[in-house]
Amino acid sequence: MINITLPDGSVRQYKKGTTSLDIAKSISEGLARKVLSASVNGQVWDAARPITGDATLKLLTWNDADGKNTFWHSSAHLMAEAVETMFPGVKFWVGPPVENGFYYDMDLGDKKMTEEDLTALEKKMNELAKQSNSYIRKEMPKSEAVKYFTEKGDEYKLDLLQNLNDGEITFYTQGNFTDLCRGPHIPNTGFIKAIKLMSIAGAYWKGDEKNKMLTRLYGVTFPSQKELDEYLQMLEEAKKRDHRKLGKELGIYTLDDDVGPGLIMWLPNGTVMIEELEKLAKETELEAGYKRVVTPHIAKESMYITSGHLPYYAESMYPPMEMEGEKYYLRSMNCPHHHKIFAATPKSYRDLPYRVAEYGTVYRYEQSGELFGLMRVRCLHMNDAHIYCSKEQFNDEFRAVNDMYLKYFKIFGIDKYVMRLSLHSKEKLGIKYVNEPELWLETEAMVRNVLKESNIPYVEVQDEAAFYGPKIDVQIWSVIGREFTLATNQVDFSQGRSFKLQYTTADNHTETPLIIHRAPLGTHERFIGFLLEHYAGKLPLWLAPVQVKVLPISDKFLDYAKAVSDKLKKADIRSEVDDRNEKIGKKIRDTELLKVPYMLVVGEKEMNENKVAVRRQGKGDAGVKGVDEFIAEATAEIKERRAE
Amino acid sequence: MINITLPDGSVRQYKKGTTSLDIAKSISEGLARKVLSASVNGQVWDAARPITGDATLKLLTWNDADGKNTFWHSSAHLMAEAVETMFPGVKFWVGPPVENGFYYDMDLGDKKMTEEDLTALEKKMNELAKQSNSYIRKEMPKSEAVKYFTEKGDEYKLDLLQNLNDGEITFYTQGNFTDLCRGPHIPNTGFIKAIKLMSIAGAYWKGDEKNKMLTRLYGVTFPSQKELDEYLQMLEEAKKRDHRKLGKELGIYTLDDDVGPGLIMWLPNGTVMIEELEKLAKETELEAGYKRVVTPHIAKESMYITSGHLPYYAESMYPPMEMEGEKYYLRSMNCPHHHKIFAATPKSYRDLPYRVAEYGTVYRYEQSGELFGLMRVRCLHMNDAHIYCSKEQFNDEFRAVNDMYLKYFKIFGIDKYVMRLSLHSKEKLGIKYVNEPELWLETEAMVRNVLKESNIPYVEVQDEAAFYGPKIDVQIWSVIGREFTLATNQVDFSQGRSFKLQYTTADNHTETPLIIHRAPLGTHERFIGFLLEHYAGKLPLWLAPVQVKVLPISDKFLDYAKAVSDKLKKADIRSEVDDRNEKIGKKIRDTELLKVPYMLVVGEKEMNENKVAVRRQGKGDAGVKGVDEFIAEATAEIKERRAE
Repeated sequence: MINITLPDGSVRQYKKGTTSLDIAKSISEGLARKVLSASVNGQVWDAARPITGDATLKLLTWNDADGKNTFWHSSAHLMAEAVETMFPGVKFWVGPPVENGFYYDMDLGDKKMTEEDLTALEKKMNELAKQSNSYIRKEMPKSEAVKYFTEKGDEYKLDLLQNLNDGEITFYTQGNFTDLCRGPHIPNTGFIKAIKLMSIAGAYWKGDEKNKMLTRLYGVTFPSQKELDEYLQMLEEAKKRDHRKLGKELGIYTLDDDVGPGLIMWLPNGTVMIEELEKLAKETELEAGYKRVVTPHIAKESMYITSGHLPYYAESMYPPMEMEGEKYYLRSMNCPHHHKIFAATPKSYRDLPYRVAEYGTVYRYEQSGELFGLMRVRCLHMNDAHIYCSKEQFNDEFRAVNDMYLKYFKIFGIDKYVMRLSLHSKEKLGIKYVNEPELWLETEAMVRNVLKESNIPYVEVQDEAAFYGPKIDVQIWSVIGREFTLATNQVDFSQGRSFKLQYTTADNHTETPLIIHRAPLGTHERFIGFLLEHYAGKLPLWLAPVQVKVLPISDKFLDYAKAVSDKLKKADIRSEVDDRNEKIGKKIRDTELLKVPYMLVVGEKEMNENKVAVRRQGKGDAGVKGVDEFIAEATAEIKERRAE
Repeated sequence: MINITLPDGSVRQYKKGTTSLDIAKSISEGLARKVLSASVNGQVWDAARPITGDATLKLLTWNDADGKNTFWHSSAHLMAEAVETMFPGVKFWVGPPVENGFYYDMDLGDKKMTEEDLTALEKKMNELAKQSNSYIRKEMPKSEAVKYFTEKGDEYKLDLLQNLNDGEITFYTQGNFTDLCRGPHIPNTGFIKAIKLMSIAGAYWKGDEKNKMLTRLYGVTFPSQKELDEYLQMLEEAKKRDHRKLGKELGIYTLDDDVGPGLIMWLPNGTVMIEELEKLAKETELEAGYKRVVTPHIAKESMYITSGHLPYYAESMYPPMEMEGEKYYLRSMNCPHHHKIFAATPKSYRDLPYRVAEYGTVYRYEQSGELFGLMRVRCLHMNDAHIYCSKEQFNDEFRAVNDMYLKYFKIFGIDKYVMRLSLHSKEKLGIKYVNEPELWLETEAMVRNVLKESNIPYVEVQDEAAFYGPKIDVQIWSVIGREFTLATNQVDFSQGRSFKLQYTTADNHTETPLIIHRAPLGTHERFIGFLLEHYAGKLPLWLAPVQVKVLPISDKFLDYAKAVSDKLKKADIRSEVDDRNEKIGKKIRDTELLKVPYMLVVGEKEMNENKVAVRRQGKGDAGVKGVDEFIAEATAEIKERRAE
């Protein structure tokens, strides 16, 4: 008998050679139908693979990232089988799971695959899936594997074999398809219920443009048709909400070749959004007792050696500027400058917690190929802050940071979010992690405690902390279900010491403060990109670059329109007049496209009664109102930062 | 007879060989007593030098920079004469006028000059001045001059002679002192009525540390004792108001070796000032129809080649960062980025004037030795903006910019200011200036006209415009009479073309806009430095980092003090509680030193009546008031940005 430890800590005994699938069945048949693979002693295995010794076991389903990867990797094999039936003689390179689905790179010889083939391939895949063919694992001596592919004339798999050692080579077979593969795979093809082939692309063998161009076929699969339908609908919606498309249409940002890739230039409308976000953060932080600072974007090499950015983070930084025998670097993080602010004047326990906030701009080198709209850029504006506190103050400070997140989530209608708490690993203390076993356990417990007490959904991840303390990654989902990494919170034992930061305690000793790194709005760039998608460009009133457009029915009412608009401006409402010589219908249509929240139509009647005919973007007529009445309503909507 | 043209354009006839002094006397004896030198055909001459041909003449007095320089240069000779009497055998190097006075570098052999010698030297100078010895000019063949100094054994003057050509060598003699000197000089030593020797310093010969160390003696002189007294008093006051001293005492800014020289780090109190200035500028600019943008601090080399910053301005820029085969530069000006914003979307006459504002940060390389507190720095934050307009709109736009200056001057109590209008020179069109003769005359006339109509004091300077248009330098004086260059306004015909900026006119042609470069608050750094001196650190309420300090008489009233402070904060008043266990007298003294505008003392009586005992910084008791009454008064004072 062997002992199997389950995630809840319970230990069950099974016969030696039992499989994860057997264990799942012993718990419930329903569970067994969902098991895609299993984590056995931390390694992902086929659910059908016999377990021969004591093990910790986690059954993996569609809800686990590793389960999903198994599903998609098996789908790539299924796709390859279908391709082989339609393109005999095809040779395969690699077929991994990716963020949303999977692909397979293949050499079709002198044949060509077209968009029209995709339907037939999908049909074939569905047919093969219905056969519920098992994925059968077979260990293979290297010599035999080489012989097999040599006879087949498959130079690609032979190339892969070169880097594999004898004893670690496995083949997987489902139906009539056999592949050299490390696995794992799902139990059988019947799990794959919904299939969509997405696109065909070219990809150089091994990513090297000197090599042959292979055909890359992308697909995505799901355990049910409903999930596929939802996914395709989300994609359709995401396309409409693409922040790059909206960013251009709404005049949010631009890029320029002479400035450089990834260096966003914020146009007037985008700048209004930035300033409204800053205002929100400043108000929030003022109330929470933060002090604001302004620091330069550059510093000498010596600062980044102290902080450890150099040499460890050098490849993510812009190259240095050399002058007067010194190297200056554009900063990639604000923390070192803030540490220097802390150190600039002597600190005592009376000064703690010392909370330093800055709308800091940082520069990070991202490969040109990685740059993507507002999501991956080289110049980032951050609502950044660092909190220097004593161990006793940590709990309250960390809780306050969490509360700030929750406040922001509420304002922006972010209903789905999760915090990913990355912990240290005991074995790697002094290697990957600062060697402070007690501080680790203590702060991890404090963080966990606050997350629990605040009812914040969170997951724990072992062995992924930062060098200097536990790390919390905040994941949020937009209204259409796309996931974004918003920000990272870090607890820091170490930099305080590196920078020799100290404060005098009440009993006149010196202590090094703990540091909390936090930036709950993440970067302007990513957050505004997220908001554009989240709101489909229909920003809430308080965030809208132009809040009101006054539309005179004809030029006769232009003066009145201007007077109304001026009155709105005096009341701090961002207002414009559509003074073009156009029909009112066209004015309304154009303003709708610009997603201006309110349109005030004015004609004879409105002018005579000092009123406006209100239209809400996307919703049409909202009645005739007095100008002052409208101002009062709009002002309240802005002040409360109402979603609508 | 010769024709002498005076500054008012009138022409008078005089005998050939007449002197400027004679001409002054022919106008009025009183004027003649004030003439220090004269500008003859644009060259500064001795007032006593005979004029032998037709000339334009400007008599120079103490009120002209060149007159003052003559006065101080002559004072250096007087000082040298005094030194020679007390240190026989002294050899002199050079003795120029400087910003506030003059110095002379000298080799005292094995003797040493001490602070004690200064009084005796001053006495001797006064004695020599009273002799009213004339400064007598004598032309000298080079051979004779060399012979003279060879016999004297004066290697310093021989060194100077090496670089002079025969025919241009002159000697000046007053009393018993003769010097090799280009001149000009004042008529006689009797003009020098008040003398102060300031300090002794060491200075390497020719500024090279491999050379001998000479003695540099600084002095300052005036035409009256009253002016000297005022100057010394101003210096005394300026010392107390030194922005570096106040900057430290009030927690405004700091510098750090690891960040780098000239890179200001704004501490929380300084950041409040920055944010209040930004708020003022944003409000002002919003009302004036500016749009705000945010752009990166770097750009590719290609942009700065288009703008002409490279190679012409390269030595004032940080060196480039090289990556991906491109050079990136930290920007030293914001204009090119703004031009790119203008170009980002098609523009029509309806979009003009297009006013783009940004709190832009720029980086400029200043020699380490030139760096000085907040006045000369390497990282500058600017309230910058560029206005793109048609020729027809220029007048109104430029006037609006001027009005903005006047608004700011009023808010900050800047009573003395002057605009220095730099014009082109016809002869240098196409060389030093864009070859657009009509545009030059037209815009210069427009600028002049606006300055006149706005009653702004201004002076015109020939041949000092920017390459691309007339330039206005704004000079202001602090309350103690120190002069600061605040900002530069520029009219620009040229960059619009370099950047291919265009707009569609009403009749469907394309035109290049005119550009106004403006930054009326100058840089944060310099302006805050100015304000610290101007207000002696006693900032007006709206600018004060901490506006109110609540001082409980004892711990018994701490809770009440905190409640008052919280109420103030809710009303957006920056308030703190002095919760130290100190006597009220000490609390008041310490708060006075921090120059917090209002102190609210609270004890038994105040607590029971929900009142506060108000003290105004530097003024003492201001009566007991209800908390709400105080809040209403302070809020009004802040909102109106009252000086006090």
